[in-house]
Amino acid sequence: MEDSVRAEYFDLLKFPTVGADPMHLRDCVQCAVWLKAWLARLGFSGELMTEGGNPPFLLAERKGTEGAPTVLLYGHYDVQPPDPLDEWDTPPFEPTVREGRVYARGAQDDKGQFFAFLCGLRDFLASAPETVPTIKVLLEGQEESGSVVLGRLAPSIRARLRADVLAVCDTSAAKGLRPAIVAGLRGVSHFTVRLEGATRDLHSGEYGGIAPNAAQAMCELLASLHGPDGSIAVRGFDAGMELPTDDERAAAEAAAMTPEEFERDVGVPPVGGERGLTLTERNSFRPTIEVNGVHSGYGGPGSKTVIPCRALAKLSMRLAPGMNPQNALAALERHLKAHLPPGMKLSIEEVTGEAAGFRLPLASPLFRLASHVLAELDPRGAVYQWDGASIPIVSTLKTLSGAAPLLVGFGQSEDRIHSPNESFGFAQFALCRAWAAKLLAAL
Amino acid sequence: MEDSVRAEYFDLLKFPTVGADPMHLRDCVQCAVWLKAWLARLGFSGELMTEGGNPPFLLAERKGTEGAPTVLLYGHYDVQPPDPLDEWDTPPFEPTVREGRVYARGAQDDKGQFFAFLCGLRDFLASAPETVPTIKVLLEGQEESGSVVLGRLAPSIRARLRADVLAVCDTSAAKGLRPAIVAGLRGVSHFTVRLEGATRDLHSGEYGGIAPNAAQAMCELLASLHGPDGSIAVRGFDAGMELPTDDERAAAEAAAMTPEEFERDVGVPPVGGERGLTLTERNSFRPTIEVNGVHSGYGGPGSKTVIPCRALAKLSMRLAPGMNPQNALAALERHLKAHLPPGMKLSIEEVTGEAAGFRLPLASPLFRLASHVLAELDPRGAVYQWDGASIPIVSTLKTLSGAAPLLVGFGQSEDRIHSPNESFGFAQFALCRAWAAKLLAAL
Repeated sequence: MEDSVRAEYFDLLKFPTVGADPMHLRDCVQCAVWLKAWLARLGFSGELMTEGGNPPFLLAERKGTEGAPTVLLYGHYDVQPPDPLDEWDTPPFEPTVREGRVYARGAQDDKGQFFAFLCGLRDFLASAPETVPTIKVLLEGQEESGSVVLGRLAPSIRARLRADVLAVCDTSAAKGLRPAIVAGLRGVSHFTVRLEGATRDLHSGEYGGIAPNAAQAMCELLASLHGPDGSIAVRGFDAGMELPTDDERAAAEAAAMTPEEFERDVGVPPVGGERGLTLTERNSFRPTIEVNGVHSGYGGPGSKTVIPCRALAKLSMRLAPGMNPQNALAALERHLKAHLPPGMKLSIEEVTGEAAGFRLPLASPLFRLASHVLAELDPRGAVYQWDGASIPIVSTLKTLSGAAPLLVGFGQSEDRIHSPNESFGFAQFALCRAWAAKLLAAL
Repeated sequence: MEDSVRAEYFDLLKFPTVGADPMHLRDCVQCAVWLKAWLARLGFSGELMTEGGNPPFLLAERKGTEGAPTVLLYGHYDVQPPDPLDEWDTPPFEPTVREGRVYARGAQDDKGQFFAFLCGLRDFLASAPETVPTIKVLLEGQEESGSVVLGRLAPSIRARLRADVLAVCDTSAAKGLRPAIVAGLRGVSHFTVRLEGATRDLHSGEYGGIAPNAAQAMCELLASLHGPDGSIAVRGFDAGMELPTDDERAAAEAAAMTPEEFERDVGVPPVGGERGLTLTERNSFRPTIEVNGVHSGYGGPGSKTVIPCRALAKLSMRLAPGMNPQNALAALERHLKAHLPPGMKLSIEEVTGEAAGFRLPLASPLFRLASHVLAELDPRGAVYQWDGASIPIVSTLKTLSGAAPLLVGFGQSEDRIHSPNESFGFAQFALCRAWAAKLLAAL
């Protein structure tokens, strides 16, 4: 990577763009302004849009050759919160190079990936091509927290989003960095659950045996979400779920990781999810309900013998294609109310990121073209993948733009996105950059 | 209260003596030094004792009339951690008077109570009595975190602890501030449970459905501790439990609070504990297992879609008389291991405060004398109570000192000990002070 590109990449990573945290709003605005200026140097005219104190999104456009197709590139400059901070070997917003990798929050997800794509776009433009597509770049600041403002404003700028291809560079390659085209994503929804019991924390001796305990109640409530076999125990939750075809299942299994690979990666066997289903089935095609966090009462050194009066849990669901996010949440809400321990008041707050999952038909002209380009980059050719993850806004943009989604990214599990010590390899960056240049030339 | 006494009381409350937190060790030492100096002015010679970086305890002695009995007063100058800080109306270590009450952490538990007793002792000495008991004052700094160093060193100073009466002023009066003699305490034990799954927090989309979730696992594990009827589901936990006699049960029920009083106090009905048992039975005579805190994963604003790799819980048990703390913990440990969800490593740490509960015979000369003194203070006379709380070190001191325990305190539930906005009423302080003066005169 040229020094000048590295300097730009590092400048981008230094913005602590934790989009979910209002404390970082200013950092998000500054990052978006930086991106607008970067694209302006390539001939883009852009605009920041937002409302209600949310981090802005950038929509920039560069007119192409008359009659050439329109590509809409979607990416996000916001990142996951970096905590727990003490588990980072180097500070999350001071990019550091070690053994061919850049360590920083967002090094991969998604700053690294979309910036590599933009560098490929610059390479393409510098190659003096005869035909240049019209290129629209849409970079938002709330992907990790539900694309609130983009989701709200996108319908009103529908005409400006129109495109033929919706390029998204926020996914992973297969193992060994073999290129992968994402043929499906799970849907998602996340929210906060609060329990309130007594009007204050109570002494566990004086009140123990009579006062309801919010920590215990939250544990019982969350434990009720799954059966002893790991299956989801929420009645009606998976209504509408469309299971994959035999072809899709076979293609997914062919590219699947083995239990041994999983354990080498994360240090535990793949014992999550429903017993009796394959890894691929559980990770790509089935829904989940995950406890992203639970907090109640004392957690410091020594002991504090209280009966906590309140508890908080952060939950997220991944949805199989066919499941309706609102219906799934309603089923979950019914379950929580039905299983609420006595003495507790329940509230569900901060419902965000509701998006359906989808699967794309394998036999499409765009997938054929993409496969061809990727085979030029890697003789092994591309595989199809059905990601367990979600990019909620993609469903919305797919509908509004009328474009065919093309999700090709170069993540690897060793990148540890969402975890401490997130990183992105220079080899991955280079591949992503080359993909962008070749794709734009081939369209 | 005289201005001079109030100034002393406030000085004592201003020391942030959170004994469980090593950050406050210096504050604990300074507080113990202050107490030693205060007692020296009454003719006591005292000594601070500790080891291993623990807050010191103070043992001070004042020789009495030849042949007079020896009273050992036990109290603790350490306090519960004050968090959550934002729920205090005024700062926890800046004592503030509102409507006849002093608000501060420790205002009651136990600084307010033992200091009121010491003021009564001073009043007694100032009254030029003919006979003065030998008085030993033992004030420690780790009652809220298991009396670690006092428990360890007490056997080696056994001779210096010898006494006829062990006066403890760390309990509550009955409702309406009617004096109460505590005829029994529950035992206690507290500890920390940790679960470790993957080597890092994982992306809930990429790994969802295959990775084990430590937050979910901790919830399932803690939920398994109780049955659907609120009973403890840990096999062998209550081995040895001695249930009260009919007389004790009748005396306890006569002084019991009603469900309505409980609900007025804490804002929820008394729905904790095992269904089908009375409030008194559940609160005074039966064991409990309480989750004092549970923490795992994200808890900040917005969402963070991780699968947490670790979880922490703080647990405490209250033990019925007859139960052995070590056996109870061993039963609980067996249960946790047997119910451990797959993919998790379990560790049990910070086991502290292990103490058995006890019940005292109602028909004793000391109880008769105390009843007589208390009837002089309040024409309603004293009631007997079996506290749900524990003063772990009392069992130890009872054995080592050879003294008969006399637990009379003047707490009320509105004092909110262990909660934000702890307070102590001037009327309670005055009663406690009068009790000490009259008791010492009567012995």
